[in-house]
Amino acid sequence: MGELRIFPVEGIGEVRQGDDVAALIGDAVETSPYGLEDGDVVVVTHKIVSKAEGRVVPIADEAAYRRLVENESQAILRRRRDLVIAETPHGFICANAGVDRSNVAAGWAVLLPIDPDRSANRIRRRLMRRFGVDVAVMVTDTFGRPWRRGLVDVAIGVAGMEPVADLRGQVDDHGRRLEVTEVALADEIAAAADLVMGKANRVPAAVVRGVAWTPADTGVRPLIRPPDEDLFR
Amino acid sequence: MGELRIFPVEGIGEVRQGDDVAALIGDAVETSPYGLEDGDVVVVTHKIVSKAEGRVVPIADEAAYRRLVENESQAILRRRRDLVIAETPHGFICANAGVDRSNVAAGWAVLLPIDPDRSANRIRRRLMRRFGVDVAVMVTDTFGRPWRRGLVDVAIGVAGMEPVADLRGQVDDHGRRLEVTEVALADEIAAAADLVMGKANRVPAAVVRGVAWTPADTGVRPLIRPPDEDLFR
Repeated sequence: MGELRIFPVEGIGEVRQGDDVAALIGDAVETSPYGLEDGDVVVVTHKIVSKAEGRVVPIADEAAYRRLVENESQAILRRRRDLVIAETPHGFICANAGVDRSNVAAGWAVLLPIDPDRSANRIRRRLMRRFGVDVAVMVTDTFGRPWRRGLVDVAIGVAGMEPVADLRGQVDDHGRRLEVTEVALADEIAAAADLVMGKANRVPAAVVRGVAWTPADTGVRPLIRPPDEDLFR
Repeated sequence: MGELRIFPVEGIGEVRQGDDVAALIGDAVETSPYGLEDGDVVVVTHKIVSKAEGRVVPIADEAAYRRLVENESQAILRRRRDLVIAETPHGFICANAGVDRSNVAAGWAVLLPIDPDRSANRIRRRLMRRFGVDVAVMVTDTFGRPWRRGLVDVAIGVAGMEPVADLRGQVDDHGRRLEVTEVALADEIAAAADLVMGKANRVPAAVVRGVAWTPADTGVRPLIRPPDEDLFR
């Protein structure tokens, strides 16, 4: 395996409902020194996807925000003071069902895309047509974790690649079957991309070059642990 | 922010008790085209650190392995069939208390280093002296997560840098205080580094170039969520 490179996609301004995210990313990439190559993974924070798709709603007050979080939840796992850990209709488990009030005008909240796989697929098709290359695309959000402090970016929508790399059948240097059989490749890529995106600065996308991925059209689903396999619900 | 680059540290063979991990990494880096620069983060899988520190033990059978996992645990959170989710003496919560039988000869298991921060610090001091540059070093392991399938690499030992980036006080483009205030920077770096390391191939370290980190000597502790803040124990 060789070197991995991650490029921030810069110059994308404020995104509004109806904007074409693929065109915005394409314009930024086209004028960049790194361009877009076969095998690249384009990582997009859901914030701009949600805004383009009109998933931004006004919230009059804290109570309205709380109601919105309940509406966006299909199950509540835990509550403590202001914090709700909820399962979204997509099957993601995260704080406040992904409803976010950062990077949006005061009095508004950004929701998760209704179908982040579909959003990723649409961006992928357009980028592939425009640049004539085969790339994967993922949409990400920032999640907390039990037991560990600090947040990390994870994949919530995936297009074109297997999100979980299955190493079953592979052996280590001692000829022993690997105990680690499934690597959350898409989540590792999402976390890596966040390193060039930051939270306060307007870098809502990144191009990751040098990851070996397997083509697939499963979307994000393989990353979601089925409830009956889960010990912490 | 500019481009991020991640280089696999290749050419490190099988590591044995008493080996000098910093020297092995230094030799590999010195003969590489990328070298070591100010601001780099050197990421090392704990497997080679544990082996060098003699944290490898024979296990006669499955029952011996089970006893070993219990010995390495300071608390058991969940059990299901063969799987134990345990808290280690370091405060990490992970499968089988980090006891691993991959990438080691059959009949043996690798334990976590006793003090991974100390291991990271030792490697850091030696690399800094040898190369005359200021770098951060982290030791990583591969952990599962609740709710999401697939494993990701996380930091279990940190030297030289703040593992959690505190964004409190920063505002977004709308002048709004950021809701995301703590980014698990070290874990995002660990996940990124794993993208060049793989699991089956002998790349036990990586050099990450282009991350802005803040000097600190807290070790890994800020990444561990205090039990009273945790909703999933």
